Amino acid sequence: MAWLRYALGMAEQDRRARVAIERVTPQVDGGRFPVKRVLGGELEVEAFVFIDGQDAVQAVLQVRTEGEKDWEDLPMHRVGPDRWAGRCVPGEVGRYAYRVVGWPDRFQTWLQGLRKRLDAGLDGSLELSDGVALLHRYAETSDPPLRSQLMGLAERLPTEGLALLDENALAVVSASDPRRLATVSSVYEVVVDPARAAFSAWYELFPRSASPDQTRVGTLRDVQTRLAYVAELGFDTLYLPPIHPIGRVNRKGRNNRISAEAGDVGSPWAIGSEEGGHTSLHPELGSLDDLDRLVEAARGRGIEIALDMAFQCAPDHPWVKAHPDWFARRGDGSIKYAENPPKKYQDIFPFDFETNDWRGLWDALRDVFLFWGEHGVRTFRVDNPHTKPFPFWEWCLREVKRVHPDAVFLSEAFTRPLVAERLAKVGFTQSYDYFPWKNTKGEIEAYFSDLSRNLDFLRPSSWINTPDILSEYLQLGGRPAATVRLVLAATLSANYGVYGPVFELGEVTPREPDSEEYLDSEKYEVRHWMLEQPHSLRRLVRRVNRIRQDHPALQRDGNLRFHNTSDDAVICFTKSCDEDVVLVVANVDPTGARSAWIELDTEALGLDTGRPYQVHDMLGEERFLWSGARNLVQLDPRVQPAKIFRIRHRIRSEADFEYYT
Amino acid sequence: MAWLRYALGMAEQDRRARVAIERVTPQVDGGRFPVKRVLGGELEVEAFVFIDGQDAVQAVLQVRTEGEKDWEDLPMHRVGPDRWAGRCVPGEVGRYAYRVVGWPDRFQTWLQGLRKRLDAGLDGSLELSDGVALLHRYAETSDPPLRSQLMGLAERLPTEGLALLDENALAVVSASDPRRLATVSSVYEVVVDPARAAFSAWYELFPRSASPDQTRVGTLRDVQTRLAYVAELGFDTLYLPPIHPIGRVNRKGRNNRISAEAGDVGSPWAIGSEEGGHTSLHPELGSLDDLDRLVEAARGRGIEIALDMAFQCAPDHPWVKAHPDWFARRGDGSIKYAENPPKKYQDIFPFDFETNDWRGLWDALRDVFLFWGEHGVRTFRVDNPHTKPFPFWEWCLREVKRVHPDAVFLSEAFTRPLVAERLAKVGFTQSYDYFPWKNTKGEIEAYFSDLSRNLDFLRPSSWINTPDILSEYLQLGGRPAATVRLVLAATLSANYGVYGPVFELGEVTPREPDSEEYLDSEKYEVRHWMLEQPHSLRRLVRRVNRIRQDHPALQRDGNLRFHNTSDDAVICFTKSCDEDVVLVVANVDPTGARSAWIELDTEALGLDTGRPYQVHDMLGEERFLWSGARNLVQLDPRVQPAKIFRIRHRIRSEADFEYYT
Repeated sequence: MAWLRYALGMAEQDRRARVAIERVTPQVDGGRFPVKRVLGGELEVEAFVFIDGQDAVQAVLQVRTEGEKDWEDLPMHRVGPDRWAGRCVPGEVGRYAYRVVGWPDRFQTWLQGLRKRLDAGLDGSLELSDGVALLHRYAETSDPPLRSQLMGLAERLPTEGLALLDENALAVVSASDPRRLATVSSVYEVVVDPARAAFSAWYELFPRSASPDQTRVGTLRDVQTRLAYVAELGFDTLYLPPIHPIGRVNRKGRNNRISAEAGDVGSPWAIGSEEGGHTSLHPELGSLDDLDRLVEAARGRGIEIALDMAFQCAPDHPWVKAHPDWFARRGDGSIKYAENPPKKYQDIFPFDFETNDWRGLWDALRDVFLFWGEHGVRTFRVDNPHTKPFPFWEWCLREVKRVHPDAVFLSEAFTRPLVAERLAKVGFTQSYDYFPWKNTKGEIEAYFSDLSRNLDFLRPSSWINTPDILSEYLQLGGRPAATVRLVLAATLSANYGVYGPVFELGEVTPREPDSEEYLDSEKYEVRHWMLEQPHSLRRLVRRVNRIRQDHPALQRDGNLRFHNTSDDAVICFTKSCDEDVVLVVANVDPTGARSAWIELDTEALGLDTGRPYQVHDMLGEERFLWSGARNLVQLDPRVQPAKIFRIRHRIRSEADFEYYT
Repeated sequence: MAWLRYALGMAEQDRRARVAIERVTPQVDGGRFPVKRVLGGELEVEAFVFIDGQDAVQAVLQVRTEGEKDWEDLPMHRVGPDRWAGRCVPGEVGRYAYRVVGWPDRFQTWLQGLRKRLDAGLDGSLELSDGVALLHRYAETSDPPLRSQLMGLAERLPTEGLALLDENALAVVSASDPRRLATVSSVYEVVVDPARAAFSAWYELFPRSASPDQTRVGTLRDVQTRLAYVAELGFDTLYLPPIHPIGRVNRKGRNNRISAEAGDVGSPWAIGSEEGGHTSLHPELGSLDDLDRLVEAARGRGIEIALDMAFQCAPDHPWVKAHPDWFARRGDGSIKYAENPPKKYQDIFPFDFETNDWRGLWDALRDVFLFWGEHGVRTFRVDNPHTKPFPFWEWCLREVKRVHPDAVFLSEAFTRPLVAERLAKVGFTQSYDYFPWKNTKGEIEAYFSDLSRNLDFLRPSSWINTPDILSEYLQLGGRPAATVRLVLAATLSANYGVYGPVFELGEVTPREPDSEEYLDSEKYEVRHWMLEQPHSLRRLVRRVNRIRQDHPALQRDGNLRFHNTSDDAVICFTKSCDEDVVLVVANVDPTGARSAWIELDTEALGLDTGRPYQVHDMLGEERFLWSGARNLVQLDPRVQPAKIFRIRHRIRSEADFEYYT
């Protein structure tokens, strides 16, 4: 009885399995959620693998793709007294499982015992016969070629002794180890996303404002024309707010007025009308063919089209009639609209994810992703995911990735960090971070240090602005503020985004003094933009994106290091990747020039402080010769409030001359 | 298909369960191992419990004893935005499971929504009818008394409104919450040990050396006589090295000589002869009746008898013949003796825990514990557990605790911390720590800070000396060293031990210059001790143990705080428990007097630095009036190398006089 109870607790492992496996990394919540990696990167797994007594142990990393039954062995090697490491370089996007297997290495144990005896001058002949027995035992479970080699070794061991056991012989023995009484760790998972999941530059624009012709509304074809501009700026993801039919019932007016006037076009987030819902296109934007062409043309320029998934309905969305039970109701039988008293959103019906027909609702929402997936869209920005259940997302995103393992989902959850983190855990590929509200040096340093703790599962996406977020800093700081925020977003984070063309055109007027929404926002009306303006920041944007393309150090997170400066308004950090070191120094005070001593952690950067080194500002195209850790940087916001230096580790000296002796 | 796969991953929980539960504490390795607590203490459980959107949540802690099916609810309350805490005060020793259950609190959600509406001046009549519907739904699943109360509330709600929902009404609603779509956390376990597991003072002595009569060997009856002495010294655990028959084959001689001479008594750790094995008593020590009487007499004085479990055999142990397959063999068929080349331990056969008859062997070893358990022994010191498999201990200790849940096991694993920690995880109650080799201030501070991280599962036991460990510090430092080590062991750790009477009699001669073993060690011969000697430390030992008894702060771990001093040889720390604050200052240099400024972290100690406070040295019976954080302490090792202060927070001032105005 007691045996049985215990055996159940230990799963299927032999009770005698002596090897302990602890602290497997990476892992999220003990393996409850997958870690995230990208194609082209690697998964480095470590674990403590150890045993009672003095016996030798051996360990392998095992990996398999989702749905496969067989595990593939990958070697692990010792990196500390009991710490083992192995690495896996996934060859495809998808979901993989991994685990660590450890076992007593009988042959090594025997060998180290014998060596100790011989070193102590003791006789080892009895032990040699133990070795022969062990080789025979290994041979029993080996395939013929290995078996005959083992038998050969066994035959020669008594006469030739340890000299026989060269590297080749030990490799044969190791390859035939029956791994008797092996211990298997818990199973962990990793989601391997496409490379763009970890490195991307997003540009958001409203298609209906993309018309070059002031007399008509923009279309998907206009967006296709705009691709050249987006590509010139250097963005790789073009995100379009919802492109579905817009509800007419309780439609909001310009500047979010309670009711629309004739001609008001409504908010794209009020989804659905008699013209269709989440799988329809707004008729004025064009046809599905236009979309297909846009997606293809964009991809031809290295740009992914990202669609907005906002899971909510306008009152005239077809689902409201077809599936009345997908919505919660008030006491009078009317559908509950969204509300945050005193604010009412009578143009928005949220779904009731706990409805009895939840399977029908959840399937329909998953099918929305799959529908656009069939039109080539693989990138989705998800609106307010934190107001929908975590288990829905966990199921839905996994279902979509089963069909499109290269899909990328950006979570727009401006809520408590715990909630945003949970959404990342349950499957979102990227997460809007709180960068827009982190403007002082202290705020930025603290926040990005916090973020760095969760990079195994949460990829921050730093947005300079969005249609909902025109920060006070941008409103008041003018061009210097815009410049600094661009440089910071694009260099602090490997994933960043900007909402244009308002950004590059310097539009910063809020709807009302305390608002973070734009005046005459595109959310509620069609706008026409003159892109060719002398004050446009487009050249700076292009330059910054070019620098990102050129520098591997800027294409990943987790390599960020802040350095001290003598001025609280001057922030200084580096990102490094192998030899590539990018140093950013920015004056976050848009109102005044600053000179600051910056103090590089030269040891961490691997800089030889005994020699001068060159720093090259890739924005201003200036070069400086620095030496030591402390150097002076001057930043005048009216001229150039931020510098992005490339650090050249090695400077020529006279010793480089051929004739130098 | 996909549904099914997913459902399996989510266990039996409803897929719609929206509440997330994260970071449940305490837990060891994600719940793989139990945490440890003691009877009289409490288990404080915390978890993040949260949900999508703005809905209210509710959480309870659930606990059940091992083997029970039903969970008992214990309340949790919010201690942070999403953090919940609950506590359980176990009423019995044993093994308990606990988990956290969270669910959307539908009534609170409704209530907070309605309040928000009303606060915003909106109409709430429709919402009141929602509330009525909710009360009816709660009533459906409630027992009659609650049901009728709910129906009463439902009837009055439309007319009386929110005023109806006073504390009592809300308690009725809360008690009847059907907890629809609740989320259940992983299950964690806690082992509740007797109080002595967390606070104990051990004294080790060799029974055969306990004879007051120089002409004969000591017996268990002599040990019984010695109880008065042990009790006078203030110890609560009397640990006896193995009391079994000692092997004659290959017996070691005095001072660990390779072979015994006539009359040599052998090492008690070479267990077993034709007179019996692990469940027999050495005939010269007495009878099982003597043992029973000793255990009972000891308990009458508040002392537990601890036996030594050394799982190994002398060559003439009965099991060697009866169970030849329990031992590994060399190439010539002989049994493998213990060996660490060039050292051979031919008097010791280790078990082969992987033998085919492992079930037979494991059962027999468990039965050894149970045998002594039937003789009233509940405390076991386990010899070299790190040379036996972890899974054996996990199974065995649990089996023993199933029968004797108050059993205490002390692990003697002087090996790598990872291995010692694993043994604590798999079930050892206490663990010898590396205190004997931590003698400088820096070593002690670093080591005890390390230990503090693992207190949820590892209870350190700090030993001043053992028959195997006569540290260089004790060998060379004389009486000051012994005094300091006593004070440090007894105050740094709630569990400590000493091997006597050598300790209090000041015996410090090693067998040879580099050895940590005693000359003429009791391990290999019978000794006779004169306890009544003027230089004995017994009065100091008694005093220190008395102070431990009087001060709750010294009866637990995890409350240790080091404070800065101006001298690297002067260590300073406090232990606190509520109002009780004990301050220890010690000079770890046994050769010279030191004066040091100590700098108390007065804020952490809750000391009012605006007023003087009294410190009372309970060893020297001196009192000082201190003020502020910095005060001078003088420690002359020839007089008193350490002080144990009691801090009196509040000093009388003139304001305490009755006539003071």
